[in-house]
Amino acid sequence: MNSALLLDLYELTMAESYFIYKRNAFATFDLFVREPPKNRAYLVACGLGDVLNYIKDLRFNKEDLEYLRRQKIFSADFLNYLMRFRFRGNIWAMPEGTVFFANEPIIRVTASIIEAQLIESFLLNTINLQTMIASKASRVVLAAKGRGVYDFSLRRTHGSDAGIKVARASFLAGFNGTSCVLAGKLYKIPITGTMAHSYVMSFKHELDSFLAYSNTFPERTILLVDTYDTKKGIENAIRIGLYLKATKHRLQGIRLDSGDIVALSKLARRMLDKAGLNYVKIFASGNLDEFRIKELLIKGAQVDNFGVGTNMGTSIDAPSLDVIYKISEVTDENGNFLPTMKLSKGKVTYPGRKQVFRIQDRKSRFIKDILGLEKEKINGKPLLIKVVQKGRIIYRLPSLDKLRISVKNNLSKFPEAMRDVYFRYAYPVIISPQLKKLRRTLIYQLEKRQ
Amino acid sequence: MNSALLLDLYELTMAESYFIYKRNAFATFDLFVREPPKNRAYLVACGLGDVLNYIKDLRFNKEDLEYLRRQKIFSADFLNYLMRFRFRGNIWAMPEGTVFFANEPIIRVTASIIEAQLIESFLLNTINLQTMIASKASRVVLAAKGRGVYDFSLRRTHGSDAGIKVARASFLAGFNGTSCVLAGKLYKIPITGTMAHSYVMSFKHELDSFLAYSNTFPERTILLVDTYDTKKGIENAIRIGLYLKATKHRLQGIRLDSGDIVALSKLARRMLDKAGLNYVKIFASGNLDEFRIKELLIKGAQVDNFGVGTNMGTSIDAPSLDVIYKISEVTDENGNFLPTMKLSKGKVTYPGRKQVFRIQDRKSRFIKDILGLEKEKINGKPLLIKVVQKGRIIYRLPSLDKLRISVKNNLSKFPEAMRDVYFRYAYPVIISPQLKKLRRTLIYQLEKRQ
Repeated sequence: MNSALLLDLYELTMAESYFIYKRNAFATFDLFVREPPKNRAYLVACGLGDVLNYIKDLRFNKEDLEYLRRQKIFSADFLNYLMRFRFRGNIWAMPEGTVFFANEPIIRVTASIIEAQLIESFLLNTINLQTMIASKASRVVLAAKGRGVYDFSLRRTHGSDAGIKVARASFLAGFNGTSCVLAGKLYKIPITGTMAHSYVMSFKHELDSFLAYSNTFPERTILLVDTYDTKKGIENAIRIGLYLKATKHRLQGIRLDSGDIVALSKLARRMLDKAGLNYVKIFASGNLDEFRIKELLIKGAQVDNFGVGTNMGTSIDAPSLDVIYKISEVTDENGNFLPTMKLSKGKVTYPGRKQVFRIQDRKSRFIKDILGLEKEKINGKPLLIKVVQKGRIIYRLPSLDKLRISVKNNLSKFPEAMRDVYFRYAYPVIISPQLKKLRRTLIYQLEKRQ
Repeated sequence: MNSALLLDLYELTMAESYFIYKRNAFATFDLFVREPPKNRAYLVACGLGDVLNYIKDLRFNKEDLEYLRRQKIFSADFLNYLMRFRFRGNIWAMPEGTVFFANEPIIRVTASIIEAQLIESFLLNTINLQTMIASKASRVVLAAKGRGVYDFSLRRTHGSDAGIKVARASFLAGFNGTSCVLAGKLYKIPITGTMAHSYVMSFKHELDSFLAYSNTFPERTILLVDTYDTKKGIENAIRIGLYLKATKHRLQGIRLDSGDIVALSKLARRMLDKAGLNYVKIFASGNLDEFRIKELLIKGAQVDNFGVGTNMGTSIDAPSLDVIYKISEVTDENGNFLPTMKLSKGKVTYPGRKQVFRIQDRKSRFIKDILGLEKEKINGKPLLIKVVQKGRIIYRLPSLDKLRISVKNNLSKFPEAMRDVYFRYAYPVIISPQLKKLRRTLIYQLEKRQ
């Protein structure tokens, strides 16, 4: 689906107009989140890998051009230009897994204005989905306090692309695996699963279904115990657990998918332990998210692993990010870059070529970010690194396993309060004096000029 | 992305267990929405086309099987079975565009239990996304009361698959076009667009940008007027409108993307009309949905066309449907179908092979639905029709244009109150006496049996 036509029509019409009026102009665009969703104290950057693949492969093929020609919108000259189109600009980006905040550019593109504009729709679409999910999933991981969390969301993600990207983004954020087999194959993520109610119901007696499944997979059986009566379901699971034990196997777990998870998990733990099955894990699923998991654990639920579906896979409390792609500088007739910005009501942006500096204290803890101009000397770690040089990818993507570890380490250096799912901690992001000054001057100039 | 591996792992493990214990069993599954979202008085079925393509093409290729083999979960026998796997069952479905309600099956699958189970994840994923979007988009269309509505959501849809499916589902529901070029190409949907703020900002003066764009596209220019000062932007648009008029062209429209749309659109209409540009259309965009559009129109906004993005493209107030796939009957040892159902707390289902009958009054208005057993003689229109016969597609999908018309006609036959975006009208869905009786008897039997 990485078609060059996966874009908004206006990217192409603006490109044709630039082709006529600004063929030699260059511009810088920032991709950033304007306003974070209310339940997100931080965001986790994700999606850069797909962006780089897109940049590398971006071509308009014959069929694309033929479709565009038939629309009778574009000139033959411009369609010829598209035929030879390549992205040849520079891109700076935060590595995947970087924790970031509102107004901080996570991707910065400097290129011919046509090239920089044409990639807008794909970049926004990709970063929006993956960053939104990684950010939501990260909260679920923190709420689970070290217990296992698994992505069960495939059936409710928005289509197939989201299905696999949600699995990857949540794994990057610290999930332990996914039910989505294709994501397992594509990204080398551990795949996992239990059984459905339909399986249990297809047998006359629940116990028959448990026995059949555990005979099929004696070392990887997790029994779903709530199809008819949960307490009887646990009793049946214990029968299977003892039967497996007698044949030198181990029942892996049971799953609770409805009812009072706190009470039922405590009951199940007691019953399993009493039967000598203390190694059998308890899985919970059903409308789980960071809030529900935190609540369950506070109430003492005896759950070892959580299967998390819809609420994470759709980022249900914030199913989009306010992610935007804004021009921040453009060349004049002489090829000099001049900063620019938008004055629309409530939508003012920051001009110029910017960098994000993360400031640490002596114990390497992060204390604040400074959003400044790239050329400023600020004593902090610059978060944007160069990933594309004149159209060539110069950045090697770390493995997903490495990214997972870096997210975890990264997060641990932020204030504890930021990691609470309820507390709305506001990490300080300071605008540098130089950027403030540039903005002030430019507002004055633009208002005068127009 | 129509990979056979786009499924939850448990579909495959259950399949292996069925392969051993229930190789000759057949079952019926219903796909339906258990609980409608609170802001949806009705739902619009969408996604059947993709389901049928999936059914037709479903194969496990060598690479898939090799991946599964490496997981060391499955037996060689079962992997051999998967190599030859085809869906050979029967499927009944509501045509796309059918208006439906909670608990009504929109797809009913009767097949070998392995085949019926294996397709679960894909069916849910596909129907969830497309039905959710068609249902949301339908409300936006109703709120706009005949004005144009355009899908501008690509940048915020959940990935690329959602990007094109949202364009299609919203067009089916009555939208007039999409900004997504790829969707336009794939589904023959009219493509549309205006210009971005970055385009305006890349020129020194707003007027220069307007002039350049209208010179490039003298017959299809829609000017974005809010980059700096909206009133001045409208004045500049009028200059361009008069310039185009003088050269025998017509300015198509202006777009308002921020600020007080009601006041600004009234102002713009007055200014345009006064300048003799009464044919110039006013477009509005920015956080629009059915609620906002209704509010704007009540307050007298002078808007001709709405660009609707994120809120529709993510179905923001209900980013998933409670769509489920539940077994309703299964064969016994003798091959006789026996009804079955789930007793889990709050998740009880309806057993048996069912049909949905839509009852009309003498004026062809829909007055209620009856959910009954297929074999029941009920004097209403059966909504489920046979689309797959022994694995072969026997249903020809209507064109998207025909589907659009049928959605519109369909909706017009329901009570007026159902079409209001605020009023929570509950269309009556009655359970037939026979189905009620079957359910009662079965609950008794199941509780006794377990």
